[in-house]
Amino acid sequence: MDDALTSADLVRLRDHALALADESRRRLREFFVGGFEVKQKADGSYVTNADIETERALRAMTSAAFPDHGLIGEEHAAHGKDARLRWVFDPIDGTEDFVHRVPTFGTIIALYQGETPVVGVLDVPMLGLRVHAAKGLGAFSGSERITLGDIARSVPQEAWRITTSSRSNFVRHRDAIGRDDGAIFDRLTAQFPNHRIYRSCLAHLLAITGQADACVDAHNPIWDIAAARILAEEAGGACCTVQNYTIGGEPMYSTVFGRKLAVERIAKLFEA
Amino acid sequence: MDDALTSADLVRLRDHALALADESRRRLREFFVGGFEVKQKADGSYVTNADIETERALRAMTSAAFPDHGLIGEEHAAHGKDARLRWVFDPIDGTEDFVHRVPTFGTIIALYQGETPVVGVLDVPMLGLRVHAAKGLGAFSGSERITLGDIARSVPQEAWRITTSSRSNFVRHRDAIGRDDGAIFDRLTAQFPNHRIYRSCLAHLLAITGQADACVDAHNPIWDIAAARILAEEAGGACCTVQNYTIGGEPMYSTVFGRKLAVERIAKLFEA
Repeated sequence: MDDALTSADLVRLRDHALALADESRRRLREFFVGGFEVKQKADGSYVTNADIETERALRAMTSAAFPDHGLIGEEHAAHGKDARLRWVFDPIDGTEDFVHRVPTFGTIIALYQGETPVVGVLDVPMLGLRVHAAKGLGAFSGSERITLGDIARSVPQEAWRITTSSRSNFVRHRDAIGRDDGAIFDRLTAQFPNHRIYRSCLAHLLAITGQADACVDAHNPIWDIAAARILAEEAGGACCTVQNYTIGGEPMYSTVFGRKLAVERIAKLFEA
Repeated sequence: MDDALTSADLVRLRDHALALADESRRRLREFFVGGFEVKQKADGSYVTNADIETERALRAMTSAAFPDHGLIGEEHAAHGKDARLRWVFDPIDGTEDFVHRVPTFGTIIALYQGETPVVGVLDVPMLGLRVHAAKGLGAFSGSERITLGDIARSVPQEAWRITTSSRSNFVRHRDAIGRDDGAIFDRLTAQFPNHRIYRSCLAHLLAITGQADACVDAHNPIWDIAAARILAEEAGGACCTVQNYTIGGEPMYSTVFGRKLAVERIAKLFEA
């Protein structure tokens, strides 16, 4: 494939992403019902053989179909980081919830062309929810095209439906970056009091479909946030990277996306 | 039935509660898939024909089985409020999420003998989750007995898994009671940063099974909180009513429940 991806290329790449999501859903449902092995990493976070084996399967499927593409995921070392097309996987976003058998975890899959996301999929296997998008091809919830309208001005801000992450995410890199964003969480929850807190994948999905008006996710590595921008933009919404820095060379992002007016207002919280 | 409920009485009453939950689950799944009509109440909250018709069905089943029992629910006027045994129903806890097709809503069912809850059921139809308990008969997740141990002292407080409600719940009665408990939400989320925010039924269920360590739910009418105490106590956990007042004669409660050490620490947030 040359520089400009054709519509046919994008269809093929999107279909590969959907095949990955099918495989991931099948495996995760099996692990969730049948059992899995849990370890805690040095930082206290969890990893299971379900994360590791599912990511390995997604990588193998992708290497077989597209041997020259790069592969970036949470549980295995990056491969082909300088490739023009790079796949980003988080096979289990919300491993802590998965480990505690809370069925709101999900799979995040995206494809980047250079710095631009061109395909994105979010899949919540136990809830049977999926959204996908590809550049110029639209965003879909299942087989239904998503059109994300704006919030009616008559709806008071206190009723806006916001999804976000726990306060622990807002403060998790305070030592590395010398800044504690707990105060941003406090302003967000005070000014937008009708919020729900899930792990990223479900929180993102609800803001893409319009089931929530916006999502705010803070201090994430690329695999957590990889699918949000292409999904939001193809759905007709907005996506705003409000923080962008590196820790040990790895980029980190704080992001607000969903209905335009909500994104605009919430992004201001990060300016103060 | 005389004053002391026998074990046989309790089995019969618990089995009725489970039959109600079966009926409610069947109806709500049908409505969720097949569609429903939505209205907004004067206060901006939602009600659907699914709430109204499901509560009506639960009342009819209960009146047929136990004609002298009282009935209290969100969508219909109370009946037999002075009866010695009173059923409390919330057919759809989380109607706003139901309306937005977020599958985390649930049904709350409880039976009170005087002021004492003796049976409790929480059912999350779209996630296939259910817990139930009856006085002296234990608490169960599906068919599995729940034994809620305490948190190991080695787990740091910042890793404790807490479920709670949105900040809007903490402030919702500020005008009626002349107090704004937003500051309690802020202290809770700062001191227990590993939280998730769902609607009551799922938030409660996760703290009863031990999938979360504790739940904090604030400023609730009786039907939101009705099942929590009997479930927590029968599971071997603790339940602490940290606020109790009336608005227009209706009692309101703020409640902390789950693993004992977590309940003890969190309850202190309401003392300051």
